Amino acid sequence: MAQEQVVTPWEVSGSGAIDYDKLISQFGCEKLEQRLIDRVVKLTGKRAHTFLRRGVFFAHRDFEKVLDSYEKGEKFYLYTGRGPSSEALHLGHLIPFMFTKYLQDAFKVPLVIQLTDDEKCMWKNLSVEETKRLARENAKDIIACGFDISRTFIFSDFQYVGRGFYENMISIAKSVTFNQVKGIFGFDGESHIGKIFFPAVQAAPSFPTSFPHLFGTKSKIKCLIPCAIDQDPYFRMTRDVAPRLGYQKPALIESRFFPALQGESGKMSASDTNSAIYVKDTQKEIKKKIANYALSGGGDTKELQRKNGANLKVDIPFKYLTFFLDDDEELERIRDEYGSGRMLTGEIKNILSDVLWKMVEQHQQARLAVTEEMVDAFMAPREMPFMFEK
Amino acid sequence: MAQEQVVTPWEVSGSGAIDYDKLISQFGCEKLEQRLIDRVVKLTGKRAHTFLRRGVFFAHRDFEKVLDSYEKGEKFYLYTGRGPSSEALHLGHLIPFMFTKYLQDAFKVPLVIQLTDDEKCMWKNLSVEETKRLARENAKDIIACGFDISRTFIFSDFQYVGRGFYENMISIAKSVTFNQVKGIFGFDGESHIGKIFFPAVQAAPSFPTSFPHLFGTKSKIKCLIPCAIDQDPYFRMTRDVAPRLGYQKPALIESRFFPALQGESGKMSASDTNSAIYVKDTQKEIKKKIANYALSGGGDTKELQRKNGANLKVDIPFKYLTFFLDDDEELERIRDEYGSGRMLTGEIKNILSDVLWKMVEQHQQARLAVTEEMVDAFMAPREMPFMFEK
Repeated sequence: MAQEQVVTPWEVSGSGAIDYDKLISQFGCEKLEQRLIDRVVKLTGKRAHTFLRRGVFFAHRDFEKVLDSYEKGEKFYLYTGRGPSSEALHLGHLIPFMFTKYLQDAFKVPLVIQLTDDEKCMWKNLSVEETKRLARENAKDIIACGFDISRTFIFSDFQYVGRGFYENMISIAKSVTFNQVKGIFGFDGESHIGKIFFPAVQAAPSFPTSFPHLFGTKSKIKCLIPCAIDQDPYFRMTRDVAPRLGYQKPALIESRFFPALQGESGKMSASDTNSAIYVKDTQKEIKKKIANYALSGGGDTKELQRKNGANLKVDIPFKYLTFFLDDDEELERIRDEYGSGRMLTGEIKNILSDVLWKMVEQHQQARLAVTEEMVDAFMAPREMPFMFEK
Repeated sequence: MAQEQVVTPWEVSGSGAIDYDKLISQFGCEKLEQRLIDRVVKLTGKRAHTFLRRGVFFAHRDFEKVLDSYEKGEKFYLYTGRGPSSEALHLGHLIPFMFTKYLQDAFKVPLVIQLTDDEKCMWKNLSVEETKRLARENAKDIIACGFDISRTFIFSDFQYVGRGFYENMISIAKSVTFNQVKGIFGFDGESHIGKIFFPAVQAAPSFPTSFPHLFGTKSKIKCLIPCAIDQDPYFRMTRDVAPRLGYQKPALIESRFFPALQGESGKMSASDTNSAIYVKDTQKEIKKKIANYALSGGGDTKELQRKNGANLKVDIPFKYLTFFLDDDEELERIRDEYGSGRMLTGEIKNILSDVLWKMVEQHQQARLAVTEEMVDAFMAPREMPFMFEK
């Protein structure tokens, strides 16, 4: 019997590939339909991002309402984040940030990025000092994604908690019972009280008054959260609470998981360095990992591949290209050539290595340019007078 | 059958008077013995406070260790607090502050005072704004008790949470499970997650790194907490956690409850204004409340009182005098006169009215002199370079 698929913020498991349609109905979110993508293009005057064209971001909650009100001239802000459990970011970690950068540039809106060092201190049993250090290191990789400093506030919970943010944490916490978080997150009596409280910490940035320096103390501006679908439980909870506190429900736009090199049955794992391409990998390492570990759907021999073509449904090099090869025509060409057997496994792996190295090299160069002063600047709770200007 | 006595931070109940000896063994704290009081006198060169001489502060945890290390020249700091649920403070609320002021003056040590506006926002379902306002109003009454601004930092959780304080909250929270707080505080599945987390908020000021501006980021200085015995569960939990986080266990010195005018079976109630003398009461109100509501142990008629004398075990005017009449000889004279029947109920009630009015009048005058600027000054997270100087 197939093992039931489990998707929580801490666990993604099941037998075989994730059934995303099932997840949509299980979580109660909505499918991101083409007409919404078309509206984004119309409203922003920009080409739809690769992740929209290829269905990487595939689900949402109230995204249409955000577009409706944006069309009427109403502002919104973006909120995304990362749990800094490790210094080593892999490509899967970059996906929400790459997409959020696109949204920020396209809609010209402010963005807050939460680094949940408190969460990782509690879940991973890391010291406070170590998680603070990791948060800062991760901030550098995030900044390297190209965010606009005049519209972006990056904060770590340990560094920023206080005032409006803490007031919202408490207001949310008093609206959610233990039984509710038990149902949503699977906590039990042996869970520590920090874990039990934490959903309020991740929920709070969904409300603009958590950032009085940005939005003042009375703002009810809408919030849009780009994130991977496993974060949905936090924001389902947040959306339940919002009206009781007089806030708008945050909207969500949610992505699939980026598959491990070994195949599509979960997220990449930071603990198995051969399961993922890291942003610090060298060109040689990337080539080698793809050559040795990327699950191929191609024929077992050259002859079989020529004869039968590749099974694109399981082929990781092709899947990775759907995420990161922006050129639609080139992707179609590869689909044809490789699917039909005219292209060999070694060839598509070479193409992928080049695409990824180009991206990683650019990231590494941007990362090198990020100074400590820039980190301080992005993380300073400051007013941003131009954050809504075009 | 006698109803079992229940003492938690939110409930004090039972049939008849609290059995304090039973509470000591139930909670596992120690009796405050005369030899410890003698040591305090010897170490500080000051007369023992009324509350020590009369057994108002009657229990402790590790108080002797604090004295041992103080004798060797080791420093400690004081931590006490209040939950700002109401603007109206009664005499019972002043007791820990009057005693803490004495300790601060006698030992010349720094003091932190926590106003748990977050707690009251959650428990009493008050708005964030209202509890912040109450915290500030209560701070004025606390300042009016005469604390030394060069050694006293008053903070509200909503105002102060952040940095070292929040880091300690999280470190504590990750060391305590739901089952543990369920056992200690009686929480259940319907308790909201803010309540469940709150013990970590009240525990954190027991560790000096919650106040980096005062003690730096590495201090392990001892903490002594003067409080009413109902707060013991919080600090029992804190003491369990402390060694795991590399801190010293906080020491405690704990008081009885100040009885209601109607008699000794619990604390005074802020919701029944006739159960207590408030710091804002007029002389006339005080006289009237004592005349009409103070449970008397005197004879039902003048003749019976003359004949049998008063039952001092239940007599509230006499009990109140043991708290607030500093003159030992005068108290003994009243004990003799009233106990034997030579003094009438009306007379002891007049004496008490005078004693309390003198105290309340002085408080009111001091309170009038507290400006908003003084509140700001006491509540500013600032360095206190002279806090340990004699």
